Amino acid sequence: MATGNLDKQKTIDLRKKHVGPSCKVFFSHDPIKIVRARGQYMYNEKDEKYLDCINNVAHVGHCHPDVVEAGAKQMELLNTNSRFLHDNLVLYAQRLQATLPEKLSVCYFVNSGSEANDLALRLAWQYTGHKDIITLENAYHGHVSSLIDISPYKFHQMAVAEPSQHVHVALSPDIYRGKYCEDHPDPATAYAENVKDIIEQAHKKGRKIAAFIAESLQSCGGQVIPPVGYFQKVAQHVRNAGGVFIADEVQVGFGRVGTHFWGFQLQGEDFVPDIVTMGKPIGNGHPMSCVITTREVAESFMSSGMEYFNTFGGNPVSCAIGLAVLDVIEKEDLQGNALHIGSYLTQLLDDLKKRHLLVGDVRGRGLFIGLDLVRNRDKRTPATAEAQDVIYRLKEQRILLSADGPHRNVLKFKPPMCFSREDAELVVEKIDQILTDLEKTLGLQMSEAVISENGHTKRKEPSDENGLVHPSNGSSHSHKHTVTLPHDKKTNKRQKT
Amino acid sequence: MATGNLDKQKTIDLRKKHVGPSCKVFFSHDPIKIVRARGQYMYNEKDEKYLDCINNVAHVGHCHPDVVEAGAKQMELLNTNSRFLHDNLVLYAQRLQATLPEKLSVCYFVNSGSEANDLALRLAWQYTGHKDIITLENAYHGHVSSLIDISPYKFHQMAVAEPSQHVHVALSPDIYRGKYCEDHPDPATAYAENVKDIIEQAHKKGRKIAAFIAESLQSCGGQVIPPVGYFQKVAQHVRNAGGVFIADEVQVGFGRVGTHFWGFQLQGEDFVPDIVTMGKPIGNGHPMSCVITTREVAESFMSSGMEYFNTFGGNPVSCAIGLAVLDVIEKEDLQGNALHIGSYLTQLLDDLKKRHLLVGDVRGRGLFIGLDLVRNRDKRTPATAEAQDVIYRLKEQRILLSADGPHRNVLKFKPPMCFSREDAELVVEKIDQILTDLEKTLGLQMSEAVISENGHTKRKEPSDENGLVHPSNGSSHSHKHTVTLPHDKKTNKRQKT
Repeated sequence: MATGNLDKQKTIDLRKKHVGPSCKVFFSHDPIKIVRARGQYMYNEKDEKYLDCINNVAHVGHCHPDVVEAGAKQMELLNTNSRFLHDNLVLYAQRLQATLPEKLSVCYFVNSGSEANDLALRLAWQYTGHKDIITLENAYHGHVSSLIDISPYKFHQMAVAEPSQHVHVALSPDIYRGKYCEDHPDPATAYAENVKDIIEQAHKKGRKIAAFIAESLQSCGGQVIPPVGYFQKVAQHVRNAGGVFIADEVQVGFGRVGTHFWGFQLQGEDFVPDIVTMGKPIGNGHPMSCVITTREVAESFMSSGMEYFNTFGGNPVSCAIGLAVLDVIEKEDLQGNALHIGSYLTQLLDDLKKRHLLVGDVRGRGLFIGLDLVRNRDKRTPATAEAQDVIYRLKEQRILLSADGPHRNVLKFKPPMCFSREDAELVVEKIDQILTDLEKTLGLQMSEAVISENGHTKRKEPSDENGLVHPSNGSSHSHKHTVTLPHDKKTNKRQKT
Repeated sequence: MATGNLDKQKTIDLRKKHVGPSCKVFFSHDPIKIVRARGQYMYNEKDEKYLDCINNVAHVGHCHPDVVEAGAKQMELLNTNSRFLHDNLVLYAQRLQATLPEKLSVCYFVNSGSEANDLALRLAWQYTGHKDIITLENAYHGHVSSLIDISPYKFHQMAVAEPSQHVHVALSPDIYRGKYCEDHPDPATAYAENVKDIIEQAHKKGRKIAAFIAESLQSCGGQVIPPVGYFQKVAQHVRNAGGVFIADEVQVGFGRVGTHFWGFQLQGEDFVPDIVTMGKPIGNGHPMSCVITTREVAESFMSSGMEYFNTFGGNPVSCAIGLAVLDVIEKEDLQGNALHIGSYLTQLLDDLKKRHLLVGDVRGRGLFIGLDLVRNRDKRTPATAEAQDVIYRLKEQRILLSADGPHRNVLKFKPPMCFSREDAELVVEKIDQILTDLEKTLGLQMSEAVISENGHTKRKEPSDENGLVHPSNGSSHSHKHTVTLPHDKKTNKRQKT
């Protein structure tokens, strides 16, 4: 084996030569070479430490020793396919099932979120006998061809960006940038009505709906939190049309939202999807994934007569790792941590909003949070370049954060679940400094009166040689306030590109 | 973590409850529970040893310590996505490239053969701007929806078995059961002409060919070895139509064919595919896979503007494991072993053919061999039930073999590459005994004259308590011989269902 020790430029050169140019690196003009990681920290070839705010795959922390041990032990013992009986497979299926409503009882083990979502479509097609799929604006469901079709986030990158005939794109239930916002009396119903309209239009053309698919909280789409009740109403419309509801938990599942183990559970106890897909965090980096559905859907899939065999899916090593991840989440109460640290981080970010006009919106649940940067709060003009600036400047200070959403202006927090209070304080402090600088340059400044009312006047603080600072803790202010805007004060027309 | 120790019936019950019923087990009426494995041996819950003749995934031997160590060490250090630079990724890409013609220089790392073949289609679609795919009869290329479309082996299991509009099914270049057999003067050209005809028919309908895809040697399709020169001629026709040639090495790559590292290389040095996909053996069971293509195809894919990101693909652990597998193949000369033991096994099976009318054909390369069982040699009537019988009786003697092909009558040898002379002798000896029994029951017996000419008269030999026997080594007879058939002597009409 060869864990090499190449000069960084040599690594870059070899990558250019032998790795597909469509496979991008972070920070393309000066990419990061990471050689080891632990918990929420990653280390480059000079052993410089980065705070990782983005790797939701390293769910229980990079290289968690319990997970590594479980994988290594099982690799030594047996790694084969699921045509042989094995306890890991059935015990893992049982454990996963126990986190879900009883009705969702049948598992299929696969290797990636993409394989999971593709299988979810196959299940839906077979069960309903219908073909059409309703997906959301800006949705991303995976990289295999069937999923590019239903991922506007991807197919909009193409020159020819028309959806396939069998794909219908519904409004994103985004109450900050969408058609119905927080000032609408009932955005859940309004957005669900849009799905109903799409179904009616499809029926008029003689088309039939197989499924509605949505991430329980939209990630690449800009950390969108659908209003409570939306999924129930959509499910009703879709089921009335003979379709099923697929909840894509690939990005947000496994306790990240803090109050619940699954993102869809934020909608309330009365909502149960027909199919749930899982991915990224499930194996803490090990390639594995799962689809869980009802007995009815599973029986129907079998009745097609076609065997489902997945060479690597559900092998004893993957299942041992999956079990270890569940154990660590429980043992270390990482869902609780997501709730507490997530709330604290949200509060710190809310405070930032009080001091920085560039912050348009703070939204999230648990350790899944978006900071929507705007050039103009009333128009909600996406601050795309500024978001990139923040990301790059954070990188210089060895903090890894990313910007996403259709305008690439939403700073996305989805760190390993062992993220701490100190980590939250550090990243917010750094963002605070960067926003202050940016706002100075842009001439965007809150009136002193507002800042003073918010109780924050401090600016930059020096950081020590490790890039660590000790921020003063601005306590959270829950009362509403009015900001004095430098320009476009009167207009309330929002930018919706 | 929980490597459980459930009663076997409990494992079965839990599996029924929580694992998709489309996911079949081997030997459904009495499945095998395997708890550990090493080399070419697997052990059940009673620690009874099975000889494994089928697991081409455990390529360098189950749980090879070098591979396990490489995986475990890297898991401890770092497991993250390919948006960070890492030496394992580039060194592995370089090593893989070095096994291929220079032109095939750009890698994409994914998680399964299915992801690889789907990506191959995406590459072909983007590069050619065309949509249609030509696939072979009985082909199997994976389980995601785009691949079910091009896998007659799968879609023929469905009630509605029509191929999609963009899929064209060419004749399998099978010189034993196909349209043009070993008695044809030039089956390579004849089968390639069929592809040319398909292209012309498609063009008449205004359709355009994106790709021809074939396993370098067809596996599920019945261990089919295409005649030399076939791929060159097909590639010419397909490229003339603006399409590309995809060689699917998921089942047969990594030295299994013995004389070469890749199956397509059996066609000669003058043949280079445009895209090669890899899978099963690549990580000795670890979920990983790769697509390699030309610079031109890769640049065209990038020019679509769409990033290709695969969450787990090319992570440092997968690449460390991939590198270790390549190291072991080299260090233990497993390609050489595949050649030598494969030749020996083929010779033993050829000998079986001389003594058993049920053996219609022995074909293969290296440790990829098919034994085509027939009820009637002239008609080549598939002996489907007998093949199942052989498999089940071997299982009772703790030898794992499978039967595949469109008639499920081809005994498929594709063991771990550390398979030994003794293993080959054991399995052939057992098959010899079983065929003798079956032929007695069926009243299928060679004339004594023929048997005597072939120098074999021995029947059953007692096995020791470990299921091991010491077969007399019938030396290979290369001279042709005539068998006396019990019935249907005169007819030369072959069964082609």
